[in-house]
Amino acid sequence: MKWSISASPEINIKIQQVSDVWNHPDMLSSDGRLIFVIDRIVYDLYRDSIPIDAVIHQIDCGEIHKNLETAETVWNFFDKINLKRRETVYAIGGGVALDLVGFCCSIYRRGVPYIRIPTTLLAIVDAAVGIKTGINYQNYRNRLGSYYAPKLTLIDNKFIGTQESRHISNGLAEIIKLAVIADKHLFKLLEQDSGLLLTDKFQNNKLANQVIERAISTMLDQLKDNLWETDLRRSVDFGHSFSPTIEMQNILELLHGEAVILDCLLCCCIAYTRKYMNSVDLNRVVSLITKFNLPLYHRDFVNLSMLTKSLDEISIHRNNNQNIPLPMSIGQCRIVNDISESDLLAAISMMNQINENSLNNRD
Amino acid sequence: MKWSISASPEINIKIQQVSDVWNHPDMLSSDGRLIFVIDRIVYDLYRDSIPIDAVIHQIDCGEIHKNLETAETVWNFFDKINLKRRETVYAIGGGVALDLVGFCCSIYRRGVPYIRIPTTLLAIVDAAVGIKTGINYQNYRNRLGSYYAPKLTLIDNKFIGTQESRHISNGLAEIIKLAVIADKHLFKLLEQDSGLLLTDKFQNNKLANQVIERAISTMLDQLKDNLWETDLRRSVDFGHSFSPTIEMQNILELLHGEAVILDCLLCCCIAYTRKYMNSVDLNRVVSLITKFNLPLYHRDFVNLSMLTKSLDEISIHRNNNQNIPLPMSIGQCRIVNDISESDLLAAISMMNQINENSLNNRD
Repeated sequence: MKWSISASPEINIKIQQVSDVWNHPDMLSSDGRLIFVIDRIVYDLYRDSIPIDAVIHQIDCGEIHKNLETAETVWNFFDKINLKRRETVYAIGGGVALDLVGFCCSIYRRGVPYIRIPTTLLAIVDAAVGIKTGINYQNYRNRLGSYYAPKLTLIDNKFIGTQESRHISNGLAEIIKLAVIADKHLFKLLEQDSGLLLTDKFQNNKLANQVIERAISTMLDQLKDNLWETDLRRSVDFGHSFSPTIEMQNILELLHGEAVILDCLLCCCIAYTRKYMNSVDLNRVVSLITKFNLPLYHRDFVNLSMLTKSLDEISIHRNNNQNIPLPMSIGQCRIVNDISESDLLAAISMMNQINENSLNNRD
Repeated sequence: MKWSISASPEINIKIQQVSDVWNHPDMLSSDGRLIFVIDRIVYDLYRDSIPIDAVIHQIDCGEIHKNLETAETVWNFFDKINLKRRETVYAIGGGVALDLVGFCCSIYRRGVPYIRIPTTLLAIVDAAVGIKTGINYQNYRNRLGSYYAPKLTLIDNKFIGTQESRHISNGLAEIIKLAVIADKHLFKLLEQDSGLLLTDKFQNNKLANQVIERAISTMLDQLKDNLWETDLRRSVDFGHSFSPTIEMQNILELLHGEAVILDCLLCCCIAYTRKYMNSVDLNRVVSLITKFNLPLYHRDFVNLSMLTKSLDEISIHRNNNQNIPLPMSIGQCRIVNDISESDLLAAISMMNQINENSLNNRD
């Protein structure tokens, strides 16, 4: 005897820009409890604005805390407050907080609803778009996770205003990544006035708003037909091929966006030495990375054995395919499966040269 | 600015009866590795039949091992063997093994495919049907889990032949549950020859095959329109209202089916004292429980404070609703939300009386 049944649940992704998230109607009109799981640093910065009746659990964030131990503090909090099956949890913080709290919600009682409020530029354009959640496990990045859509994502740019410059650059790294593989117009926006974007911290200027809106739109466009990653050939994996392993090896030293942009640069070098990308476009990328105070060099990204190990690990994650996105020009890419040791050696040499030129320019 | 996107992934449930699972074409023709996560006891019983090239991880099962620690041994095994993103894992064992391995697969790399092979009567008619996975957490039953469809479920009755009698009765408990709330024909099949079902251990007799096929069909019928439990009013939750808390409190003493059947009996008593169910039907249930050597009594099921606590906990899980299925007759039920302390006291008194009668009959 055989049985066979099919079903298709519908999921919805809703992202909304708001000007004052703490006074958003959804929060004010909540007829139940307001339940917050919030990055400790965000809590400290905004404690006076947070609704006083919120039931709050603070978590330590930063990549090093994105693990089962922190997840257990969240589940224990849910147990302690008797979180009901359909009570909504607000996940508030940067990418680590959103990924981790989303993960916790996705498997607590087989799923409780949650709302995402990203508080960093990086999270606004990356973790807050799409349906991926995750935590690191045994030193592997996002080794445990789920696809789990939040009820709603609320974007409030004012949070970026209290970020340190290094963290704003960190967010810009993911925007550059997206621009290089999919959106030349976004790339031009970034080139327009990098100084303004950095100093004004995305507060009240037209260019900053355009950059964020365009980044979210382009990201959604890339994700929408492949939300569950049934296709493992993903352009948005640009910058995420070698970086996951190297970032985890340097967890206290490299921020996520820094690891990503180094990976982007390495892949641009491979693309350039393969003659996929021309020198004008490569120089535009190098120039933008420099303007946004992002790194052009890290020892592990010019270390052949580290790059080989990283490539092996990501290939397992991509079901034994490299699936490496390489840019063809600004705004276009292809996905390759034949990156060899000689490609890596040529790219390493190019990376070293770019670094030397940059040091010379600074002198 | 607002963004909104919808998507509906299709999932398929496929369950297939086979006569010799170890020689099933899917296993023999696997062009990759055969990866097994298997209950240690099943491994010991069937080690000579298991394909010699399988890559095997054994886990301790039993409710007390259904936790994060055991899950971590599974994830560590996946790491060690470099489990690829689309490599299939075989989950082989009873309900604990299927729930736990399914859970592990559902969140490892955000989901790797798996095939379920249930090896107990209970798992064949319960854990192997539907898409729920889970582990216990902090002494709460299935507090962490997911909805995650396996690629395939293979049913081979021969496994039941090596089960101890108490565990066969344990499986029959879930079948009785299903029959009482949804299938009077199944109930009649169970009444037909309880001795044969117990002694023959579901090997090669027509009645046993009919019972299993009918149980799976009825279970699927109950689940198919509510796979993600968007509706928390579920008839199949009969027997699972008071039992989750009490089972965890008596984890070394009560098997799952034993806790479930005691809960069923308690709810029949509530239904009887409310005049939903008549005495003929109540007696048929009591008689079947007795014939299958299942318990009619446990101190916690006649303990008002324990029942109240259990009711509170399940109500949180059902989003502040009791949603208790109560039988109206054999094969029909309704779901109520107004069970009071006096209902519980009346049912406790009835439970005690049933137990006394049973002891007297034995003398």
